[in-house]
Amino acid sequence: MTISKNYSNLMIKWAKDLFPLCRSLTGNGTLSTLKYFKKIHKEIKIISFKSGTKVFDWEIPLQWEIKDSFFEHIKTKKRFAQFKKNNLHVVGYSYPVNKILSKEKLLKHIYTLKKQPNLIPYVTSYYKKSWGFCISENQKRKLPKGDYKAFINSKLFKGELNLGELIIKGKIKKEILISTYICHPSLANDELSGPVLSVALIDYIKKKFKNNKYTYRFLFVPETIGSIAYLSKKYKILKKNVIAGFVLSCVGDEKKFSLVESRLGDKISDIAIKSSIFKKKNFKKYSYLHRGSDERQYCFPGIDLPVSVFCKSKFGDFKEYHTSADSFKIVTKKGLEESFIVMSNIIKSFEKFLYPRTKYLTEPMLSKRSLYSTISKKDVKNEDYLNIIVYCDGEHSIFQIAIKLNKSLDYILEKINKLKIHKLIY
Amino acid sequence: MTISKNYSNLMIKWAKDLFPLCRSLTGNGTLSTLKYFKKIHKEIKIISFKSGTKVFDWEIPLQWEIKDSFFEHIKTKKRFAQFKKNNLHVVGYSYPVNKILSKEKLLKHIYTLKKQPNLIPYVTSYYKKSWGFCISENQKRKLPKGDYKAFINSKLFKGELNLGELIIKGKIKKEILISTYICHPSLANDELSGPVLSVALIDYIKKKFKNNKYTYRFLFVPETIGSIAYLSKKYKILKKNVIAGFVLSCVGDEKKFSLVESRLGDKISDIAIKSSIFKKKNFKKYSYLHRGSDERQYCFPGIDLPVSVFCKSKFGDFKEYHTSADSFKIVTKKGLEESFIVMSNIIKSFEKFLYPRTKYLTEPMLSKRSLYSTISKKDVKNEDYLNIIVYCDGEHSIFQIAIKLNKSLDYILEKINKLKIHKLIY
Amino acid sequence: MTISKNYSNLMIKWAKDLFPLCRSLTGNGTLSTLKYFKKIHKEIKIISFKSGTKVFDWEIPLQWEIKDSFFEHIKTKKRFAQFKKNNLHVVGYSYPVNKILSKEKLLKHIYTLKKQPNLIPYVTSYYKKSWGFCISENQKRKLPKGDYKAFINSKLFKGELNLGELIIKGKIKKEILISTYICHPSLANDELSGPVLSVALIDYIKKKFKNNKYTYRFLFVPETIGSIAYLSKKYKILKKNVIAGFVLSCVGDEKKFSLVESRLGDKISDIAIKSSIFKKKNFKKYSYLHRGSDERQYCFPGIDLPVSVFCKSKFGDFKEYHTSADSFKIVTKKGLEESFIVMSNIIKSFEKFLYPRTKYLTEPMLSKRSLYSTISKKDVKNEDYLNIIVYCDGEHSIFQIAIKLNKSLDYILEKINKLKIHKLIY
Repeated sequence: MTISKNYSNLMIKWAKDLFPLCRSLTGNGTLSTLKYFKKIHKEIKIISFKSGTKVFDWEIPLQWEIKDSFFEHIKTKKRFAQFKKNNLHVVGYSYPVNKILSKEKLLKHIYTLKKQPNLIPYVTSYYKKSWGFCISENQKRKLPKGDYKAFINSKLFKGELNLGELIIKGKIKKEILISTYICHPSLANDELSGPVLSVALIDYIKKKFKNNKYTYRFLFVPETIGSIAYLSKKYKILKKNVIAGFVLSCVGDEKKFSLVESRLGDKISDIAIKSSIFKKKNFKKYSYLHRGSDERQYCFPGIDLPVSVFCKSKFGDFKEYHTSADSFKIVTKKGLEESFIVMSNIIKSFEKFLYPRTKYLTEPMLSKRSLYSTISKKDVKNEDYLNIIVYCDGEHSIFQIAIKLNKSLDYILEKINKLKIHKLIY
Repeated sequence: MTISKNYSNLMIKWAKDLFPLCRSLTGNGTLSTLKYFKKIHKEIKIISFKSGTKVFDWEIPLQWEIKDSFFEHIKTKKRFAQFKKNNLHVVGYSYPVNKILSKEKLLKHIYTLKKQPNLIPYVTSYYKKSWGFCISENQKRKLPKGDYKAFINSKLFKGELNLGELIIKGKIKKEILISTYICHPSLANDELSGPVLSVALIDYIKKKFKNNKYTYRFLFVPETIGSIAYLSKKYKILKKNVIAGFVLSCVGDEKKFSLVESRLGDKISDIAIKSSIFKKKNFKKYSYLHRGSDERQYCFPGIDLPVSVFCKSKFGDFKEYHTSADSFKIVTKKGLEESFIVMSNIIKSFEKFLYPRTKYLTEPMLSKRSLYSTISKKDVKNEDYLNIIVYCDGEHSIFQIAIKLNKSLDYILEKINKLKIHKLIY
Repeated sequence: MTISKNYSNLMIKWAKDLFPLCRSLTGNGTLSTLKYFKKIHKEIKIISFKSGTKVFDWEIPLQWEIKDSFFEHIKTKKRFAQFKKNNLHVVGYSYPVNKILSKEKLLKHIYTLKKQPNLIPYVTSYYKKSWGFCISENQKRKLPKGDYKAFINSKLFKGELNLGELIIKGKIKKEILISTYICHPSLANDELSGPVLSVALIDYIKKKFKNNKYTYRFLFVPETIGSIAYLSKKYKILKKNVIAGFVLSCVGDEKKFSLVESRLGDKISDIAIKSSIFKKKNFKKYSYLHRGSDERQYCFPGIDLPVSVFCKSKFGDFKEYHTSADSFKIVTKKGLEESFIVMSNIIKSFEKFLYPRTKYLTEPMLSKRSLYSTISKKDVKNEDYLNIIVYCDGEHSIFQIAIKLNKSLDYILEKINKLKIHKLIY
């Protein structure tokens, strides 16, 4: 079994294990998710922030715990939107409710998707006190007349927000940041795909590069407030050391390969992702105007880290996004494996071949090393060795070389590895 | 009434008042035009150059005065090309003539437009002694046989060339140059539209920004020789202080919004105009190879000021150009108002928001300021506040931000103003 | 007769004289070619390298001499692939053979072109011991059954490799490199066109610019190993002095005008060639990935000279390439003359107008010099003098000016010459 196949089996298992938990910005679902990963990599450090703590312009919210929720038709006792059946049914951060009200009044607290009438939407109201239920539009249309009991057994209290950090020290302090988020309930692509890929990459780095050059910082944060909280403590060191960063989001489906560029679109993280995926037929590049995850904080002018986003289908750009259809029907082993290959190739490039350089002053003789044909005939096609080596000038990154040759990063990695074996580059 | 509507009423009035005057490089028509503006803004300084003065490679020409001109069919006494009916009938700078000549010989001095047979062309011969009449092609075809008297009651003598300068001092010496020309007879778009817009902008700056930051230099010059004469005296101070300049030409019609780029096309004046007009459906950008007014002098290598041209329909690119059809049939209140809005937005941008900057290190919390939705649902469209603020890094001008977001400058101005009110940028 | 016509007559004569010689990396054919040119320009210096000498990663090969070769059908005594009829019939660097073998075994040593069944291919095996014959596919199909005698009367021995160098000293040490190759047998475009153009250009420079500014270095080298050998001795001085270099290859046909860019495509040699040929309707630009001649060595990262390739039809991109059809059916006087014009215009630009500069601060008055119309009328088209002069700022090369104006270099040369005569630029 190839390495990537092996990791894809693990990733899908982890994701399925974690799917049922009800994660949010705070609460036990998120903490349990972090603890699950800590069992795999005990070096994961859980960092906590108390509710009410000021972090830049923001404040850590109350902790939210939810045990159950539904609404019940008084007359028939029929229950709808049962949290225990699907945790998307409750609006995230709903405060506790237990009251009888008319259908009309209830409907003001019900969210549906008119254009996707079979699906339950995912809705939150973190920073404004509110409560509500999410159901399919079709179900809403069929709700019987009469009064209802709305029941939400939740708690909002001064607790804490938790996030995970794992640092793999390298020979040098310059570091590569890989960040993903842990704050959505049962969503597969727009939640679990990123964390499980991160966990696999941690394993890959530890095993593959026993003596890795760069330092790697993996973050598992509740989106927005989590990265802001973390940055409020660590932004100086990140600003000093991060040479490239990657936000992993929606990396589990098989539909596309997407890059969301950094704020200015000119960073090594941009070209690293681009070179890995631009030859895929369903490659899509988005400008920073289409951002949406924690790159919003990492790239903000004051901090301005070189961070880009890697997605398969970009958040917001696949129809299952933020609905009950974001499940293991779209997140697959194959989808996760493809993402693992993309990211592990990028890491391998950083570790081994970032700015390849030849020591030769003119072309080395490749034919004596069997890298070039010995006979000169019309239409003999030689391989790309010479095309690669002429850009191994110490100024072109391996990513730029791939783009220049209009070849994918994995192809270039294979060839450049052979050139290194032959000591033609270093 | 909006400010711009108010100015459009004034502009059209001024232009109509001044239309009948026969302006040229020199002479009373031009001087009277300057004096008319001086009544509105007494700070306008009239600067004079004596005929024969050397200015760089050029020489100030003789002063030209014209009282009357026509040609008369001897037999029928019928008069044609009467100056008193339309001052385009006489070739600019014609020397005095009073003689009888055959139709054949007369025709050598008659100019028409074969492709626009109903219109009188505008023709000049400033630097080569000549005389002539301009009539419509249709009229020419119908001229009766026989001898004619050609009569031009003009004078060419050592006099002076006049131009107008108005400086609004700012808090700093860095200045914005706005230049327009006063040397064409009864033409509306390719003459009066620019000066009346300048006069309105002077008023706007004085009233809107009582304590303006930048210094503004407004010039009203006879084209080419006027700007050369002015530069011969002032180029050093302009080279030192001008950070952006705008030539206003043909800004009164409703057909297009045009930018003629500076010599290298990379100046802030280029992007200032572009950001104001690039979202108009009839926007047109011209390279410097299509220049034609005083940017020819301002951008010349030795002086090389950052000057661009703003036009509605660009000189040479509308069919009424340099004909008797360049009248108030094409120059309208609406056309002038649109131009006022473009230029006043640019000035407002310079004065208030040129390089906006946020003091925040991560995203500020916009929802608590009602600039962002408090509920997170699929397909909630938030406004562009965050998209703007991420480029408020002190390095992107407001013009670049508009281009980056693919939004017009007025839209960005409105949003950025709100961000400033909320103290999110400074 | 124009200068270029005169040179085209000479070039075609030289090429036809030299066509029959059997050139290779080494040997008498190549040496005789050099001596032929030395008769024309006695300053050509022949530089020799002994077989076995290490040059960078390479080694000078054995000297190869060939007197005769063919294969003979034993039964009928019919001879095929007779070297004396066409020197393409023998694989370059074939070792001596004289043996009888079956048709089957012989066929393993026979090269044809299946897609061009009438043509003899050109094949070499410089660095791996081998022997073989080249014939047309049609002839191969008709070879009679039975045994054959293979006969190659060649020698491989410790001898030498020769190359030619001619330096025309200039007023300054900065130099222009012009390199071409002398290692193919009877091929017209992909061999002789380049050297005869070089020889003509040497003559042109000597006669036209008696006191030339730049130093010119002309090289006539066996491809790859020749330039590597030369660079192994001279790379330091070339790295120090070469400001632009041109490899001349396949410059004799009438089909296209091609540029192969330097390694990064941003050198003055790139734009020099481009400006000369980009207005031709059959202009083609290739990136460095399509290189193939000695630019492979000159541009290699360690040395990285600003060298581009000028071709008519690029090597590899015309159907006659490396076949017996590469003859004087495609190389013509007209083709050579067109190339002479391209290269002599580039040289003239370097010598006389590289970075033109005006001394004026505003537009000079062109009408008094009869370079601009004295009358101002709609639709008067003035010539490009002003468009050129505004970019004569000492920062735009004449090549950039041509590109900027979207005009060919010869047009710009003519206009700029006139501006110089009028002392408007220097």
